[in-house]
Amino acid sequence: MAGQEIETLIKYLSRLSGLGPRSARRAVLQLMRKRESLLNPLSDALVALRDEIKICEICGNIDSIAPCTICADPRRDKSIICVVEDVGALWALERAGAVQGCYHVLGGTLSALDGIGPDELNLAALQIRAQASEVREVIVATGATVEGQATAHYIIDLLADQKEQETLKITRLAHGVPVGGELDYLDEGTLLAAIKSRR
Amino acid sequence: MAGQEIETLIKYLSRLSGLGPRSARRAVLQLMRKRESLLNPLSDALVALRDEIKICEICGNIDSIAPCTICADPRRDKSIICVVEDVGALWALERAGAVQGCYHVLGGTLSALDGIGPDELNLAALQIRAQASEVREVIVATGATVEGQATAHYIIDLLADQKEQETLKITRLAHGVPVGGELDYLDEGTLLAAIKSRR
Repeated sequence: MAGQEIETLIKYLSRLSGLGPRSARRAVLQLMRKRESLLNPLSDALVALRDEIKICEICGNIDSIAPCTICADPRRDKSIICVVEDVGALWALERAGAVQGCYHVLGGTLSALDGIGPDELNLAALQIRAQASEVREVIVATGATVEGQATAHYIIDLLADQKEQETLKITRLAHGVPVGGELDYLDEGTLLAAIKSRR
Repeated sequence: MAGQEIETLIKYLSRLSGLGPRSARRAVLQLMRKRESLLNPLSDALVALRDEIKICEICGNIDSIAPCTICADPRRDKSIICVVEDVGALWALERAGAVQGCYHVLGGTLSALDGIGPDELNLAALQIRAQASEVREVIVATGATVEGQATAHYIIDLLADQKEQETLKITRLAHGVPVGGELDYLDEGTLLAAIKSRR
Protein backbone atom coordinates (compact mmCIF):
# COMPACT_ATOMS: atom_id res chain seq x y z
CA MET A 1 0.00 0.00 0.00
CA ALA A 2 2.71 2.47 0.92
CA GLY A 3 6.47 2.45 1.33
CA GLN A 4 8.25 0.53 4.06
CA GLU A 5 8.94 3.64 6.16
CA ILE A 6 5.27 4.53 6.31
CA GLU A 7 4.18 0.99 7.21
CA THR A 8 6.81 0.83 9.97
CA LEU A 9 5.64 4.13 11.39
CA ILE A 10 2.01 2.99 11.39
CA LYS A 11 3.04 -0.21 13.17
CA TYR A 12 4.80 1.57 16.01
CA LEU A 13 2.27 4.40 16.32
CA SER A 14 -0.54 1.87 16.64
CA ARG A 15 1.21 0.43 19.71
CA LEU A 16 0.75 3.69 21.59
CA SER A 17 -2.05 3.46 24.13
CA GLY A 18 -5.04 5.28 22.72
CA LEU A 19 -4.18 4.66 19.07
CA GLY A 20 -5.32 1.62 17.11
CA PRO A 21 -4.22 0.69 13.57
CA ARG A 22 -6.94 2.85 12.04
CA SER A 23 -6.19 5.99 14.04
CA ALA A 24 -2.45 5.40 13.60
CA ARG A 25 -3.03 5.54 9.85
CA ARG A 26 -4.98 8.75 10.20
CA ALA A 27 -2.20 10.17 12.38
CA VAL A 28 0.42 9.31 9.75
CA LEU A 29 -1.64 11.03 7.05
CA GLN A 30 -1.92 14.06 9.27
CA LEU A 31 1.86 14.00 9.89
CA MET A 32 2.56 13.84 6.15
CA ARG A 33 0.20 16.74 5.46
CA LYS A 34 1.64 18.90 8.22
CA ARG A 35 5.35 18.39 7.79
CA GLU A 36 6.54 21.73 9.10
CA SER A 37 4.06 22.19 11.93
CA LEU A 38 3.79 18.61 13.20
CA LEU A 39 6.09 15.96 11.70
CA ASN A 40 9.34 17.86 12.16
CA PRO A 41 8.73 19.10 15.73
CA LEU A 42 7.31 15.73 16.81
CA SER A 43 10.30 13.79 15.53
CA ASP A 44 12.64 16.35 17.10
CA ALA A 45 10.83 15.97 20.42
CA LEU A 46 11.04 12.18 20.29
CA VAL A 47 14.75 12.22 19.49
CA ALA A 48 15.28 14.72 22.33
CA LEU A 49 13.36 12.50 24.74
CA ARG A 50 15.37 9.49 23.66
CA ASP A 51 18.63 11.28 24.24
CA GLU A 52 17.66 13.11 27.41
CA ILE A 53 15.59 10.63 29.37
CA LYS A 54 16.94 10.11 32.89
CA ILE A 55 15.81 8.36 36.04
CA CYS A 56 16.07 10.59 39.11
CA GLU A 57 18.50 9.05 41.61
CA ILE A 58 16.61 10.56 44.52
CA CYS A 59 12.99 9.65 43.84
CA GLY A 60 12.93 7.33 40.79
CA ASN A 61 10.92 9.81 38.69
CA ILE A 62 11.60 9.81 34.95
CA ASP A 63 12.56 13.19 33.57
CA SER A 64 14.90 14.86 31.14
CA ILE A 65 17.04 16.23 33.97
CA ALA A 66 18.52 14.44 36.97
CA PRO A 67 17.73 15.13 39.79
CA CYS A 68 14.21 15.53 38.38
CA THR A 69 12.38 18.85 38.09
CA ILE A 70 10.54 18.20 41.36
CA CYS A 71 13.53 17.11 43.47
CA ALA A 72 15.54 20.05 42.09
CA ASP A 73 12.83 22.60 42.90
CA PRO A 74 13.82 24.54 46.05
CA ARG A 75 10.19 25.54 46.66
CA ARG A 76 9.24 21.91 47.27
CA ASP A 77 8.79 20.87 50.88
CA LYS A 78 11.54 18.30 51.42
CA SER A 79 9.99 17.19 54.71
CA ILE A 80 7.10 15.45 52.93
CA ILE A 81 7.59 12.36 50.74
CA CYS A 82 4.63 11.11 48.76
CA VAL A 83 5.10 7.44 47.75
CA VAL A 84 3.48 6.53 44.42
CA GLU A 85 3.42 3.37 42.32
CA ASP A 86 4.60 4.88 39.06
CA VAL A 87 5.26 8.08 37.15
CA GLY A 88 1.66 8.09 35.89
CA ALA A 89 0.39 8.44 39.46
CA LEU A 90 2.99 11.16 40.11
CA TRP A 91 1.80 13.13 37.09
CA ALA A 92 -1.83 12.72 38.14
CA LEU A 93 -1.09 14.17 41.60
CA GLU A 94 0.97 16.97 40.02
CA ARG A 95 -1.89 17.87 37.69
CA ALA A 96 -4.12 18.20 40.74
CA GLY A 97 -1.43 20.27 42.50
CA ALA A 98 -2.20 18.08 45.50
CA VAL A 99 1.32 17.51 46.86
CA GLN A 100 3.59 20.29 48.14
CA GLY A 101 6.35 17.85 49.01
CA CYS A 102 8.49 15.49 46.97
CA TYR A 103 7.77 12.04 45.62
CA HIS A 104 9.14 8.55 45.75
CA VAL A 105 8.36 6.34 42.77
CA LEU A 106 8.21 2.62 43.61
CA GLY A 107 8.14 1.36 40.04
CA GLY A 108 5.17 -0.95 40.66
CA THR A 109 3.39 -2.79 43.42
CA LEU A 110 4.13 -5.96 45.33
CA SER A 111 2.59 -8.83 43.43
CA ALA A 112 3.18 -12.47 44.30
CA LEU A 113 1.51 -13.54 41.06
CA ASP A 114 3.85 -11.47 38.88
CA GLY A 115 6.86 -12.36 41.03
CA ILE A 116 7.39 -8.79 42.20
CA GLY A 117 8.79 -8.77 45.70
CA PRO A 118 10.20 -5.93 47.83
CA ASP A 119 13.60 -6.19 46.11
CA GLU A 120 12.06 -5.40 42.72
CA LEU A 121 10.64 -2.11 44.01
CA ASN A 122 12.42 1.10 44.91
CA LEU A 123 11.92 0.42 48.64
CA ALA A 124 15.44 0.33 50.08
CA ALA A 125 16.01 3.90 48.89
CA LEU A 126 12.71 4.94 50.49
CA GLN A 127 13.79 3.52 53.85
CA ILE A 128 17.06 5.46 53.69
CA ARG A 129 15.30 8.67 52.61
CA ALA A 130 12.75 8.38 55.41
CA GLN A 131 15.57 8.19 57.98
CA ALA A 132 16.80 11.69 57.11
CA SER A 133 16.09 14.07 59.97
CA GLU A 134 14.40 16.61 57.67
CA VAL A 135 11.66 14.15 56.64
CA ARG A 136 8.58 14.50 58.83
CA GLU A 137 5.83 12.86 56.82
CA VAL A 138 5.46 9.98 54.36
CA ILE A 139 2.19 9.97 52.41
CA VAL A 140 1.54 6.46 51.10
CA ALA A 141 -0.36 7.16 47.87
CA THR A 142 -0.45 3.70 46.28
CA GLY A 143 -3.61 2.75 44.41
CA ALA A 144 -6.77 1.46 46.07
CA THR A 145 -6.28 -1.97 44.48
CA VAL A 146 -5.44 -5.16 46.37
CA GLU A 147 -1.77 -4.91 45.28
CA GLY A 148 -1.62 -1.18 46.05
CA GLN A 149 -3.01 -1.73 49.54
CA ALA A 150 -0.66 -4.65 50.21
CA THR A 151 2.25 -2.45 49.15
CA ALA A 152 1.01 0.32 51.44
CA HIS A 153 0.92 -2.08 54.40
CA TYR A 154 4.44 -3.25 53.58
CA ILE A 155 5.70 0.35 53.53
CA ILE A 156 4.01 1.14 56.83
CA ASP A 157 5.73 -1.89 58.39
CA LEU A 158 9.03 -0.87 56.83
CA LEU A 159 8.88 2.56 58.42
CA ALA A 160 7.41 1.34 61.72
CA ASP A 161 10.59 2.09 63.70
CA GLN A 162 10.66 5.77 62.81
CA LYS A 163 6.95 5.98 63.42
CA GLU A 164 7.26 4.50 66.92
CA GLN A 165 9.97 7.01 67.77
CA GLU A 166 7.48 9.68 66.65
CA THR A 167 10.00 11.24 64.29
CA LEU A 168 7.83 10.38 61.29
CA LYS A 169 4.15 10.73 60.47
CA ILE A 170 2.76 8.14 58.04
CA THR A 171 -0.46 9.07 56.28
CA ARG A 172 -2.57 7.54 53.54
CA LEU A 173 -4.99 8.87 50.95
CA ALA A 174 -8.56 9.27 52.12
CA HIS A 175 -11.20 7.02 50.62
CA GLY A 176 -14.56 8.52 49.78
CA VAL A 177 -16.96 9.77 47.18
CA PRO A 178 -15.16 11.27 44.14
CA VAL A 179 -15.87 15.00 43.76
CA GLY A 180 -18.76 15.35 41.31
CA GLY A 181 -19.61 11.66 41.68
CA GLU A 182 -23.18 10.44 42.08
CA LEU A 183 -23.83 7.97 44.89
CA ASP A 184 -25.94 5.83 42.58
CA TYR A 185 -22.94 4.74 40.54
CA LEU A 186 -20.49 4.07 43.36
CA ASP A 187 -19.55 0.64 44.62
CA GLU A 188 -20.38 -0.42 48.16
CA GLY A 189 -16.77 -0.44 49.34
CA THR A 190 -16.37 3.24 48.48
CA LEU A 191 -19.70 4.18 50.08
CA LEU A 192 -18.81 2.29 53.27
CA ALA A 193 -15.44 4.07 53.41
CA ALA A 194 -17.09 7.44 52.78
CA ILE A 195 -19.56 6.90 55.65
CA LYS A 196 -16.86 5.59 57.97
CA SER A 197 -14.60 8.59 57.32
CA ARG A 198 -17.42 11.15 57.45
CA ARG A 199 -16.54 14.47 58.99
CA MET B 1 5.74 18.85 36.28
CA ALA B 2 8.36 17.35 33.99
CA GLY B 3 11.27 18.58 31.90
CA GLN B 4 10.84 20.74 28.83
CA GLU B 5 11.48 17.86 26.41
CA ILE B 6 8.67 15.81 27.89
CA GLU B 7 6.19 18.70 27.89
CA THR B 8 7.04 19.49 24.26
CA LEU B 9 6.51 15.88 23.26
CA ILE B 10 3.15 15.75 25.03
CA LYS B 11 2.13 18.95 23.24
CA TYR B 12 2.86 17.62 19.76
CA LEU B 13 1.55 14.10 20.43
CA SER B 14 -1.75 15.53 21.65
CA ARG B 15 -2.20 17.21 18.25
CA LEU B 16 -2.37 13.82 16.53
CA SER B 17 -5.92 12.90 15.61
CA GLY B 18 -7.14 10.32 18.08
CA LEU B 19 -4.94 11.49 20.96
CA GLY B 20 -5.97 14.14 23.47
CA PRO B 21 -3.74 15.68 26.15
CA ARG B 22 -4.57 12.90 28.59
CA SER B 23 -3.84 10.01 26.24
CA ALA B 24 -0.74 11.82 24.94
CA ARG B 25 0.54 11.84 28.51
CA ARG B 26 -0.15 8.14 28.83
CA ALA B 27 1.60 7.53 25.52
CA VAL B 28 4.69 9.42 26.71
CA LEU B 29 4.79 7.36 29.91
CA GLN B 30 4.54 4.23 27.82
CA LEU B 31 7.35 5.47 25.54
CA MET B 32 9.59 6.16 28.52
CA ARG B 33 8.93 2.73 29.99
CA LYS B 34 9.55 0.93 26.70
CA ARG B 35 12.64 2.65 25.41
CA GLU B 36 14.10 -0.19 23.43
CA SER B 37 10.92 -1.69 22.04
CA LEU B 38 8.94 1.49 21.33
CA LEU B 39 10.66 4.86 21.82
CA ASN B 40 13.74 4.10 19.74
CA PRO B 41 12.01 2.45 16.77
CA LEU B 42 9.23 5.05 16.75
CA SER B 43 11.63 7.97 16.66
CA ASP B 44 13.70 6.19 13.98
CA ALA B 45 10.55 5.69 11.91
CA LEU B 46 9.53 9.34 12.26
CA VAL B 47 12.96 10.58 11.26
CA ALA B 48 12.93 8.18 8.29
CA LEU B 49 9.50 9.44 7.24
CA ARG B 50 10.67 13.04 7.52
CA ASP B 51 13.69 12.37 5.36
CA GLU B 52 12.02 10.06 2.87
CA ILE B 53 8.60 11.57 2.31
CA LYS B 54 7.92 12.27 -1.35
CA ILE B 55 4.96 13.32 -3.45
CA CYS B 56 4.48 11.10 -6.50
CA GLU B 57 4.83 13.17 -9.67
CA ILE B 58 2.43 10.93 -11.52
CA CYS B 59 -0.55 10.63 -9.19
CA GLY B 60 0.04 12.99 -6.25
CA ASN B 61 0.18 10.15 -3.72
CA ILE B 62 2.45 10.63 -0.72
CA ASP B 63 4.99 7.87 -0.23
CA SER B 64 8.59 7.25 0.69
CA ILE B 65 9.49 6.48 -2.91
CA ALA B 66 8.74 8.42 -6.09
CA PRO B 67 7.04 7.31 -8.30
CA CYS B 68 4.90 5.88 -5.49
CA THR B 69 4.61 2.17 -4.69
CA ILE B 70 1.38 1.93 -6.69
CA CYS B 71 2.52 3.80 -9.82
CA ALA B 72 5.78 1.82 -9.79
CA ASP B 73 4.00 -1.55 -9.50
CA PRO B 74 4.00 -3.27 -12.93
CA ARG B 75 1.04 -5.46 -11.91
CA ARG B 76 -1.20 -2.41 -11.66
CA ASP B 77 -3.56 -1.84 -14.55
CA LYS B 78 -2.38 1.46 -16.05
CA SER B 79 -5.56 1.77 -18.15
CA ILE B 80 -7.70 2.57 -15.09
CA ILE B 81 -7.28 5.80 -13.10
CA CYS B 82 -9.24 6.13 -9.86
CA VAL B 83 -9.59 9.79 -8.84
CA VAL B 84 -9.67 10.35 -5.07
CA GLU B 85 -9.81 13.45 -2.89
CA ASP B 86 -6.83 12.65 -0.68
CA VAL B 87 -4.36 9.99 0.39
CA GLY B 88 -6.74 8.89 3.15
CA ALA B 89 -9.32 7.87 0.55
CA LEU B 90 -6.59 6.13 -1.46
CA TRP B 91 -5.53 4.10 1.57
CA ALA B 92 -9.14 3.20 2.33
CA LEU B 93 -9.65 1.84 -1.21
CA GLU B 94 -6.31 0.00 -1.02
CA ARG B 95 -7.29 -1.62 2.25
CA ALA B 96 -10.42 -2.89 0.55
CA GLY B 97 -8.36 -4.06 -2.43
CA ALA B 98 -11.08 -2.48 -4.54
CA VAL B 99 -8.98 -0.88 -7.28
CA GLN B 100 -6.79 -2.83 -9.69
CA GLY B 101 -5.72 0.33 -11.51
CA CYS B 102 -3.78 3.42 -10.47
CA TYR B 103 -4.89 6.51 -8.60
CA HIS B 104 -4.97 10.24 -9.02
CA VAL B 105 -4.96 12.27 -5.80
CA LEU B 106 -6.67 15.66 -6.13
CA GLY B 107 -5.52 17.07 -2.81
CA GLY B 108 -9.00 18.22 -1.78
CA THR B 109 -12.36 19.15 -3.24
CA LEU B 110 -13.66 22.23 -4.96
CA SER B 111 -15.01 24.56 -2.29
CA ALA B 112 -16.09 28.12 -2.99
CA LEU B 113 -16.35 28.80 0.76
CA ASP B 114 -12.74 27.79 1.41
CA GLY B 115 -11.53 29.47 -1.78
CA ILE B 116 -10.45 26.20 -3.38
CA GLY B 117 -10.89 26.42 -7.13
CA PRO B 118 -9.78 24.05 -9.95
CA ASP B 119 -6.29 25.56 -9.93
CA GLU B 120 -5.73 24.55 -6.32
CA LEU B 121 -6.41 20.88 -7.12
CA ASN B 122 -4.29 18.40 -9.04
CA LEU B 123 -6.66 18.63 -12.06
CA ALA B 124 -4.43 19.78 -14.92
CA ALA B 125 -2.25 16.70 -14.49
CA LEU B 126 -5.37 14.52 -14.49
CA GLN B 127 -6.49 15.95 -17.82
CA ILE B 128 -3.08 15.25 -19.34
CA ARG B 129 -2.98 11.71 -17.90
CA ALA B 130 -6.47 10.94 -19.21
CA GLN B 131 -5.38 11.87 -22.74
CA ALA B 132 -2.83 9.06 -22.86
CA SER B 133 -3.95 6.38 -25.27
CA GLU B 134 -3.45 3.59 -22.72
CA VAL B 135 -6.05 5.05 -20.34
CA ARG B 136 -9.50 3.56 -20.92
CA GLU B 137 -11.38 4.32 -17.71
CA VAL B 138 -11.47 7.07 -15.09
CA ILE B 139 -13.29 6.12 -11.89
CA VAL B 140 -14.38 9.31 -10.08
CA ALA B 141 -14.24 8.25 -6.43
CA THR B 142 -14.71 11.57 -4.65
CA GLY B 143 -16.77 11.55 -1.47
CA ALA B 144 -20.56 11.59 -1.36
CA THR B 145 -20.54 15.08 0.15
CA VAL B 146 -21.76 18.25 -1.60
CA GLU B 147 -18.17 19.30 -2.34
CA GLY B 148 -17.18 15.80 -3.42
CA GLN B 149 -20.10 15.60 -5.83
CA ALA B 150 -19.42 19.09 -7.22
CA THR B 151 -15.82 18.06 -7.83
CA ALA B 152 -16.99 14.88 -9.56
CA HIS B 153 -19.20 16.90 -11.90
CA TYR B 154 -16.31 19.24 -12.68
CA ILE B 155 -14.06 16.28 -13.55
CA ILE B 156 -16.73 14.73 -15.78
CA ASP B 157 -17.02 18.05 -17.65
CA LEU B 158 -13.25 18.31 -17.86
CA LEU B 159 -12.98 14.90 -19.53
CA ALA B 160 -16.12 15.33 -21.68
CA ASP B 161 -14.14 15.55 -24.95
CA GLN B 162 -12.46 12.18 -24.54
CA LYS B 163 -15.73 10.69 -23.41
CA GLU B 164 -17.56 11.95 -26.51
CA GLN B 165 -14.89 10.43 -28.73
CA GLU B 166 -15.58 7.17 -26.85
CA THR B 167 -11.88 6.71 -26.09
CA LEU B 168 -12.58 7.00 -22.34
CA LYS B 169 -15.15 5.53 -19.98
CA ILE B 170 -16.00 7.65 -16.96
CA THR B 171 -17.56 5.83 -14.02
CA ARG B 172 -18.56 6.75 -10.49
CA LEU B 173 -18.90 4.87 -7.22
CA ALA B 174 -22.27 3.23 -6.67
CA HIS B 175 -24.49 4.57 -3.92
CA GLY B 176 -26.34 2.09 -1.78
CA VAL B 177 -26.73 0.30 1.50
CA PRO B 178 -23.36 -0.30 3.23
CA VAL B 179 -22.56 -4.01 3.52
CA GLY B 180 -23.70 -5.14 6.97
CA GLY B 181 -25.77 -1.98 7.39
CA GLU B 182 -29.30 -2.06 8.77
CA LEU B 183 -31.93 -0.15 6.82
CA ASP B 184 -33.31 1.32 10.03
CA TYR B 185 -30.25 3.48 10.57
CA LEU B 186 -29.74 4.73 7.04
CA ASP B 187 -30.66 8.18 5.83
CA GLU B 188 -33.33 8.66 3.17
CA GLY B 189 -30.88 9.80 0.50
CA THR B 190 -28.96 6.53 0.71
CA LEU B 191 -32.15 4.45 0.69
CA LEU B 192 -33.50 6.30 -2.34
CA ALA B 193 -30.20 5.73 -4.16
CA ALA B 194 -30.19 2.05 -3.19
CA ILE B 195 -33.72 1.54 -4.53
CA LYS B 196 -33.00 3.51 -7.69
CA SER B 197 -29.86 1.49 -8.46
CA ARG B 198 -31.45 -1.87 -7.52
CA ARG B 199 -30.34 -4.82 -9.54
